[in-house]
Amino acid sequence: MKKIMLKSVFLFSASCALTAQAQQSGKNYVQYVNPLIGTEKMGHTYPGATVPFGAVQLSPDTDTLQYEVNGRYNKDMYKYCAGYQYTDKTIVGFSHTHFSGTGHSDLGDILVMPTVGSLQLNPGVAADPASGFRSAFSHSNEAAAPNYYRVKLDDHNINAEMTTTTRVGMHRYTFQQGGDGHIILDLVSGIYNHANKNVWTFVRVENDTLITGYRQTNGWAKTRTVYFAIAFSKPFKSFGYRDAGGNNIYRGFWGKFNIRNNFREMIDRQLRAHFDMDVKDGEQVMLKVALSPVSTAGALRNMNQEIPHWNFDKVKKQGQEQWNSMLGKVDIDPINETERVNFYTAMYHAFLSPTVYSDVDGQYRGLDQNIHTARGFTNYTTFSLWDTYRALHPLFTILNTQRNKDMVTSMLAHYQQSAHNMLPVWSHYANENWCMIGYHSVPVIADAVMKGSAGADANALLDACVTTARNKQYEGLEWYIKMGYVPEDKSGSSVSKTLEYAYDDWCIAQMAKKLNRKDIYDEFSKRAQNYKNVYDASTVFMRPRLADGSFKKEFDVLNTHQAGFIEGNSWNYSLYVPHNPEDMIRMMGGPDRFSVHLDSLFTMDLPDKYFAETEDVTRDGIIGNYVHGNEPSHHAAYLFNWTNTPWKTQEKIRMIIPKMYKPTTDGLGGNDDCGQMSAWYIFSALGFYPVAPASGAYAVGSPLVKSATIRLENGKTFSVEAKNQSDANVYVQQVTLNGVALQRPSLAHADLMKGGKLVFVMGPQPNKSLFK
Amino acid sequence: MKKIMLKSVFLFSASCALTAQAQQSGKNYVQYVNPLIGTEKMGHTYPGATVPFGAVQLSPDTDTLQYEVNGRYNKDMYKYCAGYQYTDKTIVGFSHTHFSGTGHSDLGDILVMPTVGSLQLNPGVAADPASGFRSAFSHSNEAAAPNYYRVKLDDHNINAEMTTTTRVGMHRYTFQQGGDGHIILDLVSGIYNHANKNVWTFVRVENDTLITGYRQTNGWAKTRTVYFAIAFSKPFKSFGYRDAGGNNIYRGFWGKFNIRNNFREMIDRQLRAHFDMDVKDGEQVMLKVALSPVSTAGALRNMNQEIPHWNFDKVKKQGQEQWNSMLGKVDIDPINETERVNFYTAMYHAFLSPTVYSDVDGQYRGLDQNIHTARGFTNYTTFSLWDTYRALHPLFTILNTQRNKDMVTSMLAHYQQSAHNMLPVWSHYANENWCMIGYHSVPVIADAVMKGSAGADANALLDACVTTARNKQYEGLEWYIKMGYVPEDKSGSSVSKTLEYAYDDWCIAQMAKKLNRKDIYDEFSKRAQNYKNVYDASTVFMRPRLADGSFKKEFDVLNTHQAGFIEGNSWNYSLYVPHNPEDMIRMMGGPDRFSVHLDSLFTMDLPDKYFAETEDVTRDGIIGNYVHGNEPSHHAAYLFNWTNTPWKTQEKIRMIIPKMYKPTTDGLGGNDDCGQMSAWYIFSALGFYPVAPASGAYAVGSPLVKSATIRLENGKTFSVEAKNQSDANVYVQQVTLNGVALQRPSLAHADLMKGGKLVFVMGPQPNKSLFK
Repeated sequence: MKKIMLKSVFLFSASCALTAQAQQSGKNYVQYVNPLIGTEKMGHTYPGATVPFGAVQLSPDTDTLQYEVNGRYNKDMYKYCAGYQYTDKTIVGFSHTHFSGTGHSDLGDILVMPTVGSLQLNPGVAADPASGFRSAFSHSNEAAAPNYYRVKLDDHNINAEMTTTTRVGMHRYTFQQGGDGHIILDLVSGIYNHANKNVWTFVRVENDTLITGYRQTNGWAKTRTVYFAIAFSKPFKSFGYRDAGGNNIYRGFWGKFNIRNNFREMIDRQLRAHFDMDVKDGEQVMLKVALSPVSTAGALRNMNQEIPHWNFDKVKKQGQEQWNSMLGKVDIDPINETERVNFYTAMYHAFLSPTVYSDVDGQYRGLDQNIHTARGFTNYTTFSLWDTYRALHPLFTILNTQRNKDMVTSMLAHYQQSAHNMLPVWSHYANENWCMIGYHSVPVIADAVMKGSAGADANALLDACVTTARNKQYEGLEWYIKMGYVPEDKSGSSVSKTLEYAYDDWCIAQMAKKLNRKDIYDEFSKRAQNYKNVYDASTVFMRPRLADGSFKKEFDVLNTHQAGFIEGNSWNYSLYVPHNPEDMIRMMGGPDRFSVHLDSLFTMDLPDKYFAETEDVTRDGIIGNYVHGNEPSHHAAYLFNWTNTPWKTQEKIRMIIPKMYKPTTDGLGGNDDCGQMSAWYIFSALGFYPVAPASGAYAVGSPLVKSATIRLENGKTFSVEAKNQSDANVYVQQVTLNGVALQRPSLAHADLMKGGKLVFVMGPQPNKSLFK
Repeated sequence: MKKIMLKSVFLFSASCALTAQAQQSGKNYVQYVNPLIGTEKMGHTYPGATVPFGAVQLSPDTDTLQYEVNGRYNKDMYKYCAGYQYTDKTIVGFSHTHFSGTGHSDLGDILVMPTVGSLQLNPGVAADPASGFRSAFSHSNEAAAPNYYRVKLDDHNINAEMTTTTRVGMHRYTFQQGGDGHIILDLVSGIYNHANKNVWTFVRVENDTLITGYRQTNGWAKTRTVYFAIAFSKPFKSFGYRDAGGNNIYRGFWGKFNIRNNFREMIDRQLRAHFDMDVKDGEQVMLKVALSPVSTAGALRNMNQEIPHWNFDKVKKQGQEQWNSMLGKVDIDPINETERVNFYTAMYHAFLSPTVYSDVDGQYRGLDQNIHTARGFTNYTTFSLWDTYRALHPLFTILNTQRNKDMVTSMLAHYQQSAHNMLPVWSHYANENWCMIGYHSVPVIADAVMKGSAGADANALLDACVTTARNKQYEGLEWYIKMGYVPEDKSGSSVSKTLEYAYDDWCIAQMAKKLNRKDIYDEFSKRAQNYKNVYDASTVFMRPRLADGSFKKEFDVLNTHQAGFIEGNSWNYSLYVPHNPEDMIRMMGGPDRFSVHLDSLFTMDLPDKYFAETEDVTRDGIIGNYVHGNEPSHHAAYLFNWTNTPWKTQEKIRMIIPKMYKPTTDGLGGNDDCGQMSAWYIFSALGFYPVAPASGAYAVGSPLVKSATIRLENGKTFSVEAKNQSDANVYVQQVTLNGVALQRPSLAHADLMKGGKLVFVMGPQPNKSLFK
């Protein structure tokens, strides 16, 4: 069942958000975004309020399952990566940090819930929300828009509204029926909570309208602390806490006091605090919740600078203006209104992360856990690089050039603070969580360096890449460097690692060439060939090898959980030589044979047993054996461009989009992965895609839009026009750049950034002579 | 059995330490200090290396008992407040933080132990040191001097030497026999450890000669973090760790790595790390261990600034020069060499704490857990104020005027950072531990203000005192303010609290008077009379009252654990009206009757059953029913000055000193209590004592020295001379100040600070007409 959102529901009051730019163009892009898309099943997006790349993601959590039950991983946890599942009937509270679209999780920090009536300090269970402070809610009383979320909490008869600035969340609670009001501050609740996740919790009551504190956790980030300051618009008359973990800390002489009631320091491992006030019918109580990676003093500075007032509507309007400005970077004429929603929601999801991770004064916590000051840049965190190096960061080089520079500088700072002398792999909140494989900071950096928009010193960046790529302690690199491949008996996921290392190494070589670092160019150009060492000509697939040089006997090209691979089976991963498709195609029998082979990817019948073994994607996220819901195949449909059948790329792109991107809560075919899935859509809808970031070129596909204007930060505009565009006319008949026909299905980044016009002529049948 | 230390043992190589001042005078005071005094039984001093008021106290720990066994308090722990007991036969390692003389404890952070042979990562047990990394040792191979400690570790055949600067400990290990050398870094070990004391531990290997990290604990200080940086003079070839608490933290994707071996980030709850190196016979390995309350970056800055070299002897010499300068502030001619050792060891113990708690750049962690910068002062911590307000801080107003200003300023900063708007009660390491009773920051501040040496703004200090004294949440103050006494049925230790509040309130009144704050003067002058409200004329003792106004029926004046009192029985506490002894004596029947009464304190026979209930003091620490080992009686012997028999004060002082202060390991009659016991000795040996700090006057007793020269920070000197001084001539025949006979047994602080000469003439019989 598809759930088409009615505009009237999700566009609630977004109409006032108009930027200067949008006002000039008369356009309100915010209205086209539906943050509820992807909140059901595997999208793992969140519906709450945030500004572009905001440090605060203020969003409802619909459940607080434990990461493990009876000591074993709780598989139901997986779908709560963003804290919210659309099919749930209750809300536990509103927490201030959420990943968008990840496939593993953490965060959900500083959960706040307003209640009325008898004090309840446990969340209760979904089946019986009255058993705790959680509340039933209905989607008919819910609205989500960029930087605004609203829901009625049925159990408490409270209308809860949320908006944010970069570092501060603002809550407006309307108690429709007065009584004993409580603001619950639950420092236990969190996403991917396990029994010992909380390391320490600390709350100070500064006065009767201000509290400060922190939550220190051991989760996906091994050691992470979120500091906060919370201002109340109405003084609380009393307060207190309970420790959810029992009396398991040493109290010493604090035992002399009644520390759980009205004692102005609350310190424990598992704090749940309450702040009580008498509320009248219809009374509004507002909160400002500021976060900081540095200290409670930092949080307070963030609050005072970003929201020095209590005007909720002003905060909402300012954030929506920011969004309108960001969304308006690409103005499209879509083929229909559904695609307009898809497009701007993809833009919205693409501009959520990486997130700001420095205070208003530039201070941030570094990977070494020391406090640093970001001088000349804004520090970012949440680098899901195995995903986002593919299309998201390349998209930023076009649409968010300056931010991408700061992200690259943040990655370099991470490297400089790393005990391992490594660039980020998967990094969040001053922690390296080591998720996934490869060293995909490298392509992000190389792409920026090659495009001349890296920000930091290019040689320093290259050195960081080289040092990272030479770390023999990291994931089979010792053998990869020695033997030219990762032996499966030495380090798992060996084929995936070998292929991705080879591409990353090619990126290093390109940078070295540009910077005249010949020895590095030679070393890494050689390493870039290592994809050949895992190719098994006898099966025409990439296959795990052992340290003795032999291929691993057990081998099933369709099994994602086959030894040698990760988040992709051999069939898909065998297509992964983005830096040299020509040679890959040659190895696999030449362009014509490869074209047929690649075609079969989309048409073959994947037996159910393999699907059962695939996570991260819905059944709908798979087309034949093409798994769009996981990233390793994201470039695959574009590979026809390197055969004699580039029209098949056009056909496949236009076939994939409607299957994988729908304007419904369950409309995303897999995890959005911090915007990578959305970035694929945006590029593809515009008619081109970065098959090999750092190459400086985009593969040309088939645009979905009728036309688009890209407003570049350098003041220029680049336009795309698709003449004769329609659902049926998916084939490119001809394509011109500034009036000159493209000879190859390739667009240079440099040409794009000069501004200009790319004009497609579309038709219902392939133009098989195009690009020949 | 008395253990007289031979100079040749404890004065090992202290002879080179001569300050410019001492060199001028040709004196080496360091040689007279024996840090081993008080390390046996109840003294709770530590023998290790430190500089005056140093942030690092680098000292051997002889046991690591758990605070509780099977969930119950382990009474054996009590004697390990300073980590070392002289009668122990083994050393677990050398840790970097120790209280001196406290009666409750914490610290023992960052324990280091050098070993050779097979790696052992558990401490083992005292009965079988070979069962772990601990080692047997012998006092014949041990030496302790100011800023120097040496011991041979028999199990490892390693000679270990320690010295320090303010914030850095330096270790020199001589491996007499080479082999597989290890430096053990035990972040589990600590003083007053309980099962969950460690909150978090973190180590980074920056390179093969430098590590950084921190230890976060929940102990007497509820939430405390000690950051460190450790430099090795020799590179380690390998390293690793084990978690003493088992695999109880979430490892996530770190599980991909062999994180326990050579992985450069070690993060766990209960880390014990090892650093391995091949050592040759006779090879020396040195460590520099810097601490910081702020960050590992702060620790590294402290190291680089304070010890930018590897010259152990230079560090030792510089620290001993500091000590010589401090000790030389009072140059004495003692009645014998034993008293010279007693005197300078008392000076040494008096100048150990409060300790510096800010980095070289002035940054420190405040009570609010935020990082502050001490501008214009050095921040101090470890305020054992219930003890030290009596004589230690008054001593500082004479000998360490500038430091005492900084201590007062540090206390004001604590107040400004306090969620409770309270001055420190018992504060250490950015924590209020709430130990003991009263608000005895007040007399310290008032004493400094009245003497014109407070440093901070006097009105701000007064406001802090007033706000503290009006906190109705604190320990019965609500009732005290309302009813004039603390009712025992509302708040325990009610008599002790009432009496001490009354004195503290008098201090506030004195400040208010000086600052022309009449309303405050009136309010607190009234409160200062509250001692009268717990006086029971029918028994002539202070007695607990209930909220209904009646005296509590059950009442035993000798029982320290009697409801109503703390660390003192009613007999002793009934003497506690330091601000108005005249009125107290009047209440208790007048001077003559009181003289007899007070005399009986020293001569009465305390039944053994009461002794069994007295902690903190040895049997020797009690004379009759006079308990010198606890503080409430410290002024008692001086109260004869307010009767017609001041000669009894002289007699008692000279009787108490040799019983309570002996130059032996078990020579202190009770906890030294951060120097309070030592300060009592120093004052009394010089012939006067501050019965009522903030009064501006000292009660004159009977000097122990033959003569003394006090070198004041204002450049002046104040001399004491005792003519005809001898063990037998304890009675003062006459006393003159600058040639003028004293009319009363009282010395004004103002006169002392002007410089001058106090001359006593001593004799074997009382001069009963003196002061009449």
